[in-house]
Amino acid sequence: MVGLAPSRRVRRTPFSAGVEAAGVKGYTVYNHMLLPTVFASVEEDYHHLKSAVQVWDVACERQVELRGPDSGRLMQMLTPRDLRGMLPGQCCYVPIVDETGGMLNDPLALKLAEDRWWISIADSDLLFWVKGLAYGYRLDVLVDEPDVSPLAVQGPLADDLVARVFGDAIRALRFFRFGWFDFQGVSMAVARSGYSKQGGFEIYVDGTENGMPVWNALFAAGRDLDVRAGCPNLIERIESGLLSYGNDMTRENTPHECGLGRFCSTQTAIGCVGRDALLRVAKEGPTRQIRPLIIEGDLPRCDRVWPLIGGGKNVGQVTSAARSPDFGCNVAIGMVRMTHWDAGTRLQVETPDGMRDVQVQESFWY
Amino acid sequence: MVGLAPSRRVRRTPFSAGVEAAGVKGYTVYNHMLLPTVFASVEEDYHHLKSAVQVWDVACERQVELRGPDSGRLMQMLTPRDLRGMLPGQCCYVPIVDETGGMLNDPLALKLAEDRWWISIADSDLLFWVKGLAYGYRLDVLVDEPDVSPLAVQGPLADDLVARVFGDAIRALRFFRFGWFDFQGVSMAVARSGYSKQGGFEIYVDGTENGMPVWNALFAAGRDLDVRAGCPNLIERIESGLLSYGNDMTRENTPHECGLGRFCSTQTAIGCVGRDALLRVAKEGPTRQIRPLIIEGDLPRCDRVWPLIGGGKNVGQVTSAARSPDFGCNVAIGMVRMTHWDAGTRLQVETPDGMRDVQVQESFWY
Repeated sequence: MVGLAPSRRVRRTPFSAGVEAAGVKGYTVYNHMLLPTVFASVEEDYHHLKSAVQVWDVACERQVELRGPDSGRLMQMLTPRDLRGMLPGQCCYVPIVDETGGMLNDPLALKLAEDRWWISIADSDLLFWVKGLAYGYRLDVLVDEPDVSPLAVQGPLADDLVARVFGDAIRALRFFRFGWFDFQGVSMAVARSGYSKQGGFEIYVDGTENGMPVWNALFAAGRDLDVRAGCPNLIERIESGLLSYGNDMTRENTPHECGLGRFCSTQTAIGCVGRDALLRVAKEGPTRQIRPLIIEGDLPRCDRVWPLIGGGKNVGQVTSAARSPDFGCNVAIGMVRMTHWDAGTRLQVETPDGMRDVQVQESFWY
Repeated sequence: MVGLAPSRRVRRTPFSAGVEAAGVKGYTVYNHMLLPTVFASVEEDYHHLKSAVQVWDVACERQVELRGPDSGRLMQMLTPRDLRGMLPGQCCYVPIVDETGGMLNDPLALKLAEDRWWISIADSDLLFWVKGLAYGYRLDVLVDEPDVSPLAVQGPLADDLVARVFGDAIRALRFFRFGWFDFQGVSMAVARSGYSKQGGFEIYVDGTENGMPVWNALFAAGRDLDVRAGCPNLIERIESGLLSYGNDMTRENTPHECGLGRFCSTQTAIGCVGRDALLRVAKEGPTRQIRPLIIEGDLPRCDRVWPLIGGGKNVGQVTSAARSPDFGCNVAIGMVRMTHWDAGTRLQVETPDGMRDVQVQESFWY
């Protein structure tokens, strides 16, 4: 790997000192911020994530905060998902699209109160889109990035670890719900959520100064649980079918192409941007869609689009791929044309190291 | 340096194959795209830039294209700079601010025609802001990111090199003007501009497929000029006082704090976002401002804000710093409170390696 040059523009996080002390070996940049990608090795991190518990610096999931009388209206403008039934204390995965139905981000929305929301964003400056809309529509709402930094605790032992630091009440928290829990006198939102299928929580650490105290408390409490520093794991997230904005989908794609049609209540999400475009897509259905794929042979790191070939023609692309130790094959995510997307279809993929055989899978591996 | 993990989300450029073949040693991520930071060494690159000619992959300066009847109106909404006198073929440096006067980007705007503009952006998703405004105001304009990738040619021999590839007419091009020049049958915009003070051009390479042909043509034509792959140079850009969005200024800052007040014609730039806020700032003047600084002693890499201390109090921050071989000192850029910003003022700066003495300079070094 070529080195990542340090600069203030690539922001450090409240947990960077802990990440460095834990021996981070690779970074990516996400929302202008450092995001670790590997500690021991991607494979070793993967096995540990599935068997113990890890603490992840995901401060790069920046929050866009909406506050004020029009915040509910603005939130519904942002997404085709119908949010009318959403209650404070709930998290919702919300595709966010532009006026053509193209994906701008796929964040988690947290409803803090009727007039206050956090949008926990994937890798794009969603703040700019939200501010532009709020300004253009002269909405009575404040839009800003608060000093709140998510720290994820993921893995089968996550409940035990988090309960030791935030109290046993955390065990009762349901999936995609959050509550307010005390850490040394500071109230912090803790949600049962996270970018893995191994279970766990995301702690919305309030205040940069509280970052390392929370980090240290988790490590001190979890010694006998073999707690380690970790990060979103490339292999595990592909196995689990967790899409990555910028990798598996971009502004080129509609939610329906990304398999997110079930989050689009275009008929009832009145006022959402992109509704006209998505009504048509919902009616006609997408002509290409995300599919799980198995790729044969040795693979280089997937750092660019790999064209998928079927019947001599380009029928899609692979955007994420990795060797899965547990499933003994190369797991991959691709966008495939409907003519070739049925499970069992055999295709080829053009990697920088040559052509490889591909088979379309019925479902992801988790 | 910790390695940068490759993924599709961190986009390669049309020139990445050339950059890799030239032995790139460091990257940063800029607009979700690879930007080289060092080839031989930052110091060696610096000397070569000042004495010969370099080709820079600055494809990460993505274009936001405005097209349609309302594009001129939208462009003026975006910036407090008065654009009424701007003609097709001109480039303008345009601070872009939000409704509070906070900097969102500091791009170069290129007026292609009365109804067509490119905004060549710094590191933020300005596209989202522009699209949000266009949608909110229901403007008759198309906003998109075209497949156009700037390739810079910088250094004292840049005229000779570019003339060999694009013809001698390029020599007559004035500073911050662009024209259309032929490359193997494709017409491309070439501007006399670039992120150094060593002179040169930016070629707006039209079409990913034309990237390596232009790159290769420049290297083939420039062998006797000692042309090398280069990149924006940390030392040279600090000496020259070239600010970096995300490093030296953020959304926290007004253009006046960044020393960009001369680009704000708030009285006449009717309709620009942030006008009300900036009218006040223009009247009262900023209370802190960018200053060139000299720092004594050995310095670590400036990867975070370094607090400036004067009279025992925090009076600002350093955001960029490097050892300058030509000036025999550490050159730096900081934001300093008006109580301590006069040239000659002595301060201290708190680096991760300890306190260092600082002196405020009258002007940048170039």
